[in-house]
Amino acid sequence: VKPVSEETAPLSGGTEDEEAKSILVEPGSAGPVSALWWDSGAELLEMIDQTLLPTRLTVLQLRSVDQVAEAIRSLRVRGAPAIGVAAAYGMALGAREQWSAADPEIDQVTALTRLRALAASLRSTRPTAVNLAWALTRVLDAAERHLQSGKVVAELPACILSEAHSICAEDKAACAAMGEIGAALIKDGDSLLTHCNAGALATAGIGTALAPIFVAWSAGRRFEVFVDETRPVLQGARLTAWELARAGIPLTLITDNMAAHFMRRGGITSVFVGADRIAANGDVANKIGTYGLGVLAQAHGIPLYVVAPRSTIDLSLSSGDAIPIEERGADEVTSVLGTRIAPVGVKVANPAFDVTPSRYVAAIITEAGIIRPPFEAGLEKL
Amino acid sequence: VKPVSEETAPLSGGTEDEEAKSILVEPGSAGPVSALWWDSGAELLEMIDQTLLPTRLTVLQLRSVDQVAEAIRSLRVRGAPAIGVAAAYGMALGAREQWSAADPEIDQVTALTRLRALAASLRSTRPTAVNLAWALTRVLDAAERHLQSGKVVAELPACILSEAHSICAEDKAACAAMGEIGAALIKDGDSLLTHCNAGALATAGIGTALAPIFVAWSAGRRFEVFVDETRPVLQGARLTAWELARAGIPLTLITDNMAAHFMRRGGITSVFVGADRIAANGDVANKIGTYGLGVLAQAHGIPLYVVAPRSTIDLSLSSGDAIPIEERGADEVTSVLGTRIAPVGVKVANPAFDVTPSRYVAAIITEAGIIRPPFEAGLEKL
Repeated sequence: VKPVSEETAPLSGGTEDEEAKSILVEPGSAGPVSALWWDSGAELLEMIDQTLLPTRLTVLQLRSVDQVAEAIRSLRVRGAPAIGVAAAYGMALGAREQWSAADPEIDQVTALTRLRALAASLRSTRPTAVNLAWALTRVLDAAERHLQSGKVVAELPACILSEAHSICAEDKAACAAMGEIGAALIKDGDSLLTHCNAGALATAGIGTALAPIFVAWSAGRRFEVFVDETRPVLQGARLTAWELARAGIPLTLITDNMAAHFMRRGGITSVFVGADRIAANGDVANKIGTYGLGVLAQAHGIPLYVVAPRSTIDLSLSSGDAIPIEERGADEVTSVLGTRIAPVGVKVANPAFDVTPSRYVAAIITEAGIIRPPFEAGLEKL
Repeated sequence: VKPVSEETAPLSGGTEDEEAKSILVEPGSAGPVSALWWDSGAELLEMIDQTLLPTRLTVLQLRSVDQVAEAIRSLRVRGAPAIGVAAAYGMALGAREQWSAADPEIDQVTALTRLRALAASLRSTRPTAVNLAWALTRVLDAAERHLQSGKVVAELPACILSEAHSICAEDKAACAAMGEIGAALIKDGDSLLTHCNAGALATAGIGTALAPIFVAWSAGRRFEVFVDETRPVLQGARLTAWELARAGIPLTLITDNMAAHFMRRGGITSVFVGADRIAANGDVANKIGTYGLGVLAQAHGIPLYVVAPRSTIDLSLSSGDAIPIEERGADEVTSVLGTRIAPVGVKVANPAFDVTPSRYVAAIITEAGIIRPPFEAGLEKL
């Protein structure tokens, strides 16, 4: 994938140059930055390569489904809602590749078989976040409806692109709604803690867990945010610190193992996290470390809020124990951005997610409202 | 400080070459590796530069008190008992510097004033570990006794060196005793968790928290050890993983935020940590992250064992709230071994230690035996 634009920008809070900023802000976006967007002129998917942040701003142009799959697998785009949107656009690119070979006589069965194979290749990139599978199912359903209504196979790429646009637009609207709803939980003088990156870079909009923070700040409330660096991939240090600094929101970056100390001595008032999958009973799969924060927050009488769109809820799983946990490569742990930190050959565990039982969750904030325990009834009603 | 020997050795478990090994193993040491030792021939202090492990084995020769202070401040030598021993030898080097300028007529008051200034400069390098202050007080007391007994000022350097040797020898013996006593807490099939490095590299002997692990393994018991990488300075990934791999003990390296997940799903049976200071009520100051492990261990019904020599106990403090917590530089958090991971200018917190209230501690293992709650009486009896 060739970068369309690239800026080497060691960014300090709020001082990045306007040129770099103009690359990052999608025209018409409500949010301060976008993870990915469709270029209607060039007819391709553009995304920020998040593996290079915060020292380099690079926008990638993706023209094929394989490029999208690689970008998801390599964490160039990450965050449950964002990879759902990326996968939907990946299907649009894949469909166009399939039919651009001037094969107008392809039959409906073959077309759907090919689309299902594309979806399977994208679905296998990341197993934990349900939004990925949800977006792919939506695209396949739209394709089936298209054919069932008697429309021609040749128009499938346009149909899928249209569905991807819908998923993207709905995600933006959901982020904005979660921001408005969740902002009610933030007061002047609060000290929030957040983990990983559940911001604009994790969605097509202004984020999930960070959305209430952005909205409350814009509304004039004043507070501070502790940011877990979030090893091994450092989404907190690299992405959340960068997003909050851009927005001028006071933040303190800490290593993950400092959270308990600042819960006891630093006056943390609440914890805001996103989610990759929520089971029917309210158990939450999210970035590794979330479960520990849940236990620690409860021990200190601090509420843990989970902010996620309805597409994150998987009612097919009765509890979080059934959620598959992605195990990633050892090099993410033994190296930090290419610098080796551990002896060669040492055994490593690298579960990318953990499951927080619902008893540690104070509330789940979705675009349709705040759900409080017991979660079963509230989640099913959604 | 000029390195006396240097090996670039990307070490895999147990496969390091013999030459590198020969540098690391102090002749006659009971342990597999030593953090520091006195070179009786050259009359100087040698230590491994721990900031360069595990990729480079470099032995430093220190000839002055300033070099020792710099080495402690820069974490070339770290670990509560090891910095106590280093400081004692630093006093011996400092005294020799003071009197090598052929000043035989110096009076006793001036001599003691100079020694107290040396001690103050060493004491200020790291505020949290009490062993540092304890060792310096022992050296000053020995010097005062020396002069009170009518001996001459010119013999003070030899007196102080002798006291440093005693402190070093006692630390080795204490490590061995803690290993024997603590090994009783480790059973076949256990899955232990340890944090930071409380091994041979943290002491003059075989370690504190790792001593029972080494002894139990040598006795034929078979178990595994989860090793927290321990951000920000990564003593777990760089030092503990290296020590355990050298000893052939099965280990799994994890990021700090995975500990809760493996307590819930990985069958962790106990947690072993060292200590930098223990208050009269059993509250424990130790590497940042220990407090969180204490809360998490208790929530999972897992015992947390603190292994530390008696010199770590500070009966002058009634509780851990009075223990000073060292705040280190932001660059330890925003960079990893020189690689920048966060936006420039971002605000950082970097407390090097936290305090674990005694209610989270299952037992304190010292060279004089195992103390169980309530700790006040047991600690005072020591």
